[in-house]
Parts: sequence; C-alpha cells; structure tokens
Amino acid sequence: MLDLAKSATPSPPVATGLLYEQVAERLQNLIETGSLRPGDRAPSVRRLSSDLGVSISTILQAYRLLEDRGLLEARARSGFFVSGRLLAPPPPAKTRGSRRATVPETVEQILRVRRLANDRNLVPFGAAVASPAFLPIQPLNRALARVLRERPLEANSYDELAGCPDLRRQLARRSLNAGCALDADEILTTGGAQQAVALCLRAVTRPGDVVAVESPTYFGLLEACAALHLRALEIGTDPHEGICLDELEAALARRRVAAVALAASFGNPLGHCMPVANRRRLVDLAVEHDVPIIEDDVYGDLHFADQRPAPIKAYDRDDRVMLCSSFSKTLAPGYRVGWTAPGRFRDVVERIKNASSVAAATAPQLAVARYLERGGYDRQLTRLRRAYRDLATRIACCVGESFPAGTRVNPPQGGHVLWVAMPAGIDSLELFERALERGIGIAPGPVFSASGRYRNCLRLNVAVEWSPRIEQALAELGRLVAEQL
Amino acid sequence: MLDLAKSATPSPPVATGLLYEQVAERLQNLIETGSLRPGDRAPSVRRLSSDLGVSISTILQAYRLLEDRGLLEARARSGFFVSGRLLAPPPPAKTRGSRRATVPETVEQILRVRRLANDRNLVPFGAAVASPAFLPIQPLNRALARVLRERPLEANSYDELAGCPDLRRQLARRSLNAGCALDADEILTTGGAQQAVALCLRAVTRPGDVVAVESPTYFGLLEACAALHLRALEIGTDPHEGICLDELEAALARRRVAAVALAASFGNPLGHCMPVANRRRLVDLAVEHDVPIIEDDVYGDLHFADQRPAPIKAYDRDDRVMLCSSFSKTLAPGYRVGWTAPGRFRDVVERIKNASSVAAATAPQLAVARYLERGGYDRQLTRLRRAYRDLATRIACCVGESFPAGTRVNPPQGGHVLWVAMPAGIDSLELFERALERGIGIAPGPVFSASGRYRNCLRLNVAVEWSPRIEQALAELGRLVAEQL
Repeated sequence: MLDLAKSATPSPPVATGLLYEQVAERLQNLIETGSLRPGDRAPSVRRLSSDLGVSISTILQAYRLLEDRGLLEARARSGFFVSGRLLAPPPPAKTRGSRRATVPETVEQILRVRRLANDRNLVPFGAAVASPAFLPIQPLNRALARVLRERPLEANSYDELAGCPDLRRQLARRSLNAGCALDADEILTTGGAQQAVALCLRAVTRPGDVVAVESPTYFGLLEACAALHLRALEIGTDPHEGICLDELEAALARRRVAAVALAASFGNPLGHCMPVANRRRLVDLAVEHDVPIIEDDVYGDLHFADQRPAPIKAYDRDDRVMLCSSFSKTLAPGYRVGWTAPGRFRDVVERIKNASSVAAATAPQLAVARYLERGGYDRQLTRLRRAYRDLATRIACCVGESFPAGTRVNPPQGGHVLWVAMPAGIDSLELFERALERGIGIAPGPVFSASGRYRNCLRLNVAVEWSPRIEQALAELGRLVAEQL
Repeated sequence: MLDLAKSATPSPPVATGLLYEQVAERLQNLIETGSLRPGDRAPSVRRLSSDLGVSISTILQAYRLLEDRGLLEARARSGFFVSGRLLAPPPPAKTRGSRRATVPETVEQILRVRRLANDRNLVPFGAAVASPAFLPIQPLNRALARVLRERPLEANSYDELAGCPDLRRQLARRSLNAGCALDADEILTTGGAQQAVALCLRAVTRPGDVVAVESPTYFGLLEACAALHLRALEIGTDPHEGICLDELEAALARRRVAAVALAASFGNPLGHCMPVANRRRLVDLAVEHDVPIIEDDVYGDLHFADQRPAPIKAYDRDDRVMLCSSFSKTLAPGYRVGWTAPGRFRDVVERIKNASSVAAATAPQLAVARYLERGGYDRQLTRLRRAYRDLATRIACCVGESFPAGTRVNPPQGGHVLWVAMPAGIDSLELFERALERGIGIAPGPVFSASGRYRNCLRLNVAVEWSPRIEQALAELGRLVAEQL
C-alpha cells in the first residue's frame, strides 16, 4: 500500500484550502504523476487518518471530493480505487442505425477472426475468451471426473430433451440472484449461448425476415442471421445505455421486424448497460408491436457495479423475452454449456433443438451442475469482476497513452471487452493484418456490423493476464495506428 | 455345446439317405424341436466328426446341405450357427413412395417417442439406443478422465471450427478400413450425427425445398426436415436393398429435388443394405440430376456379414456426397460426438456449424480420439455385431411365435433395429399406448413417415440385454396385437 504521508514528493503546489481539500490535492497529485495508477487501491481511510493525523471524516470528505472529480471510485466492502476515467480517452459517440436491413456481409471476416481465437501464439486481444488463468479449470475438471466416477451410466446416456435436470435446477436456483426467477421447466440447456440464440432466432423467424440488432453488435449474432438468411437491421446504440429506443420504435413502426436481438447487460462489444427504465420501455415496445426479444445475457454476471442488473426478462409481461446465456465466459468455454428460457416459445425451441442436435453432451452439463451446487461460483464471479474491471481500466489507459489523439475508448460497465474508436480514416482491417504479422490478435470493427461499418474501430479482449508483453503489444498497436495517419 | 450323438432323442424318423444326409436330418430335427435355437452355435465340425465317427468331409457336406436349406449359416472364423430365417416371419414387401412431398406431420408423435427414450423403467424396445451393457462405459470414461488430467487446458478451451484435430485424424485413419479414404481436413466434427445431417440439409436447401427420403425412414431426418420447413418426398424402399432407384429416378426427372437423404448401410428402421451396383447407380443419378446426397452412415460399422460395406461416399465422383456418422450407436450416446465429410459443401457446412453452436464440447471429442487411438474400438465393434445379429434373429423368431399370423419381420443386415409389419388394420399408435401402460416401449410405424404411413408397423430396438422380461414383453406385445384383431 502507498504511504501518502511520505511519498508526496516531488512536493505538490502548496495546498491552501480547507484541510480535506489539501488531502485531496495531495492524492490527486499522486494520481496525476502516476504514483497511483488506474485500478490501484487508494490508502485505507483509517490508515491515512492515522498517518496524516487528521480525522476519519476529513479523509472521507477528501475521498468524496475525488470521487466527484472522477478520480476515485468507491467499491462496496473494498474501499476506494483510482478510476481510469479521466486518464482513459473519452467514450465514442452514440452510433446511428443503418437505413437498410441486410443479410450480414461480413461473415468471411468474422470466420477469419474466429479461426485465430485458438492461436496461443498471439497476444489474445482478438477473441472474447478469458485467459485460462481466470477460469477454475481444475475444480471444474475435478467435478467432471467425479461425475464420471459416481454416475458413469448417466454421463454416457442421451440427455433429456429439455436438458440435464440437475443443471436446470441449478440454473433456476441462480435465477433468483439475477432478479429473474425462472422455473427449471422453463429452461432448456444448449450447446453454448450461440446455440441458444440461434435456436431462438429459428423459432421466431423465416428466411428473409428482419431482425433488429444493436450497432455495433456481437458478430456471433450476425453469423446466426446470415446462416438463417435473415436480414439484420442495425439500430443506433449508445455506448453507455445500449440500443436507442427512439430509433427502435421508429423502425418497428415503419416495417415488420421478426425479432429484436440484443444484450442489455454489458453487450459485446460496447460493454454498455441499459438503464432499468429502458428495459421496461423496450418490453412495452415489444408488446405494442408484438415482436419477441432475444436477450443475450452471457456477460450479465460480470457487472462492475455492485448490483447485478436484472435481465430484460425480469420485466417481461407476456412471456415474449427469450433469455439466453452460457458458462463460456465465466467457467468453461470448451464445455459448451449454455441455456435459454424462451418464454412462450419454449416448445418450439425445444423441437428445433432436438431436430438440430438431439441434445448437448451430458457429462459437461452434469459437471457444471455439480460445480454450481458446491458453491464456488459466486467467489469465481467476484474474482472475475474485480480482475476485468481493473484490466479494462488499465488497458483503456494504455490505449489513451499509445494511440493517436482523437482515439476514443468506451469504459465498459461489465464484461471483458473494450471498444476503441480510432480517428476517422484509420483502417482496422489493415491494422488487423499488420498486428497479426507482429503476433497480436485484435477484432476489427467491421465484424461487428452487418454491412461492414466501424472500419475505424476495434475491440480488445481484456480478459488477459497482465504482463510486459501485453503492455508492449498495446504500445505496438498504437504505433501501427499512427503509421496509418 | 450340444452333443448331437447323444441328444438325438426322441429319435428322428429313420434316416435312409446317404450318410451326410442322415447327419443333416438329425441336426435339422434338433433345430425344429427347439433343442438348437436360432443364434446358437452348431457343434464344431471336428467334434461332431469324432462323436459320430464319420469323416470331417461328411460333416461338412451335411452342414452345407443345411446351409442350403437356410437352417444354418457359416460365419468366418466362428463356425456354423443356427439361422433364424426359416423360423422368423417372412420379410415385408417393398414399399411404395408418396405422390406428394410434405413437411413432416408426425413431429409430435416423434417427440413423444423421443421423450420416452430415457425412461429406464420401460422395456427398451422403443428408442434405438444400445443397452449400457453393450457400451464400453468404463474405458471411455477413463479416457475422458485421463484427458482431463493430461490436457486440462485444452479440454476446457473452445474447439477448432472444424473440430478436434486429434479426433479428425483418428476418423481419417479409420476411413481407410471403411473403404472410403478421407483426409482429416475434409472432416468436420459435430454434436452427434443428428447435427451432422441437419447441418448438411441446411447447407443445400432452402425452406419449401423437397428432400427425397426412404420410406420408411429415420424419424430424426423427418424432424430435421420439419424444423427447416422442408418437404420430404417418400420414395419406395426395398426392405433388403434400400431405396428404389427407378422410383427415385422418376422423381428426379419429374421435379426439382434439393437433396437425397438416406442410409445405404443398415438404415433405420429397415436395416437394409444397398448393393454396390445400386450405390454406383445412385451416384450416377445424383450427378445426372445435379443433386447432393446426404448419407447417414451411423450403422455402417455394425454389419452382420463379414465385410463392412463401403459408404456411397466411396463411389462419389464429384464430391457431392455428404457423409454423416457418429459414435452414438457404438460407443457413447451421451458424448454427442459425430462428424461429417460434406465434400464440396465443406466450407458452407463449417460456416453453418459455427453459426449454430460454434463447436461441439472439446473434452468428449478428445476422449473418443484417445479411445480410438488405443485400439479397443474394433474389438468393441466385433462384439456388438455378434450380439446384435443374434439378438435380431432371436427377437424376430419371438415375434414370429407370438404375433398374429400375417406378421412380417425384416431380417436386418446390420444395425440394431427390427421392422415389423403387422396385419393390415392393426393400429401401432394404439399399440404404443397399450404397451406403455404395461411398461413396454416401442416405436410405432407412423413416426417413420412424413405423412404418418405404416400405421400397422412398428420398430423394435434389439440392442437389449436378453432376459425373461424381454421374452415376456415380446409375448405381451403379441397378445396386445391379437386383441386388436
């Protein structure tokens, strides 16, 4: 821990204000000179009070002041931390939608990015995959090994149509924490969230139909639309609040939309979080225009604020929200364990699931159910939330330092990706190739758009183990961007 | 082993022919009186020669005579076995196709059958699932546990888009034995054969298209068609030789058919085997009419004759055959490990696979690859082939004994299901319900037809552990059928 009383050299300009202002000034100086870096914990209130010989309430007043200035942020039960907000570049502007719905045209580029996801030689900014260091590989594999020993027959039998009952029970139990109580019978397990979303899309669309999506949006959704010959209609999206409801409302009024597919909580790539009022209004719009909502909630548990936002599904009025999620981001990408609660479309989705693949593999589902039952998952989530929040801040600040002026970075409110908007004219597809040559993976902006927009943007995965190589890679990316200017 | 010299009481009518004829007569009497039952091994030639004090060549002559009469069958390296052919009911007639292509209408009935597949309280004639007694549960689970220990990271990482490289290498190696050399790069792994077939269908069809199928055909194919809004055109099928090529040719000449989807080797439910000449002609027809072939080969390794038939894919001339298979019938239904070699459609299928579910679970694939590498699979297949052949014969004979006159049973040439055609007027849907009440599962005929034909037919799974309960259940089914007369 940093000792404020001693380390305040070089001495700051003499503080002349009230005592708490003087304390705040000192601390701000430490932050601005880099002695305290974004994500670092500020000295504890009690400790600083004793070190500086001032009252605890004075220290608290100073910290509140710094919080108001955006330099510190309070975290429940953890104290104050240096915020990256002022050092990171400003967020990008709200996007605008496309006029035309289009069958996604960027599938080849997406596949290119997908193919590199497993390349362990690359600096892993490309795929939104957690470094194995963040995943409970051993406890999970132990759970699987135990399932094989204790329930060998079941592990090698066809799963139930709806999916492993143990897992559905655990999911129902956990849905209470998420603020959206589900019954085990409402839930279908799937081979990952991608299957969940793809099945839900199939249940409510026919080829040629229009699906409203965020812009930018997760490329897996665009792949699913393309494979189903669906046209994606990109709706303008606020990098902080998510899909623009006025624009969505206008689109719904203008044309038939078969489904709205989006992420309310920490959508990939923006990491936005839709305010509760918007979630409610979105449901109202869906009811009014009789359109189903497909909600991708894979990042919902990875909130940086204290509270997990309840999914849109929690505000559902007539069972039209099809909630989709998985354990690929928090536990086990290789297990392919996902699920959906498709509301009134449950039976159709179950039928399509069955026709598509009968069922998901049984043993991995039993293993995840067992892991959930043993109660380590919440600790795991807490660990991930802290790590990703700090990494997002740190990487945003590095981008601010090394990328050209005019670069904007969206501070995510959860999840583990960072959306970077570079100055106009920068070509992220070109950058993608140059970065690859240097052993660095990134996801170029156009793969997040049905029509190849966001050419000047890129997405960085922040679920990486911090190391000098990571820091160097960010500096190198900055140089590669600068070369294009 | 049965002692022919001693057990020939009650004494047969005095044999007056040549010595070998007398020997044959005695043995035939043992079979007809039930002392030797279908599937039993006949006394060894050497042993009988010594017991009866006649030359080996005389015994061989006698056995050949009985073979000609259809009472014995020779099996390579195993000796002579009592055939069930004469005791089992005669095979049903060749079916005729439907005039009209139709989106399968029997999906609800199919789901009903599917749902009961896991009900361990039922006598398991319903689902085409091997009794766990036939599966190498322990060796396979050990392989999985070892994979988790030795390659923990890989087991919990996203699979490659094409599928686990180790598994694809093993599949390529095994394809040589199957008479159809595949390169690992041609193969995509999937979540079971159902996913393989469904993906191939999606790659070559659009909703509303017509797919030519065998009649009766596997209900999973009908489910896949229904979920994709495809119309199935049922083509007449010979219970011995498979799809009727004249009828198929006429259909292809008459209308646009988007794909032909069938099983050449031991298709479910007929257990037929398409002669090589037919396989060649089918490919010719497909080339001529430029239509892709989706070949379901899940039972190909379960041939009752000595030789594994090479799949249609082996006769493919221009990469239009999409071969699909899995390990669900021979190793691990719960692992959901299947694959496809979709020829020229490989890249499209890969793209749809990726959009549908990203990939299959990694660890089960690694486990199957390891199991295949260790070399126990061929022994396992030999064991299954012998067991299923004997069970098919035995169960066919029981049906012959207990079902009403006029019942016909198709002697399968491989696989593990038996198709039973009961006298006209018998309602297998009604039988299904009555059997369920008595704790017996069956698959009623209509689920094998897009338009609900085969109301008087049923399919019996023979991959069951023989027991008095099994025998009783067959007798009970016979009584239930008789009640309907």
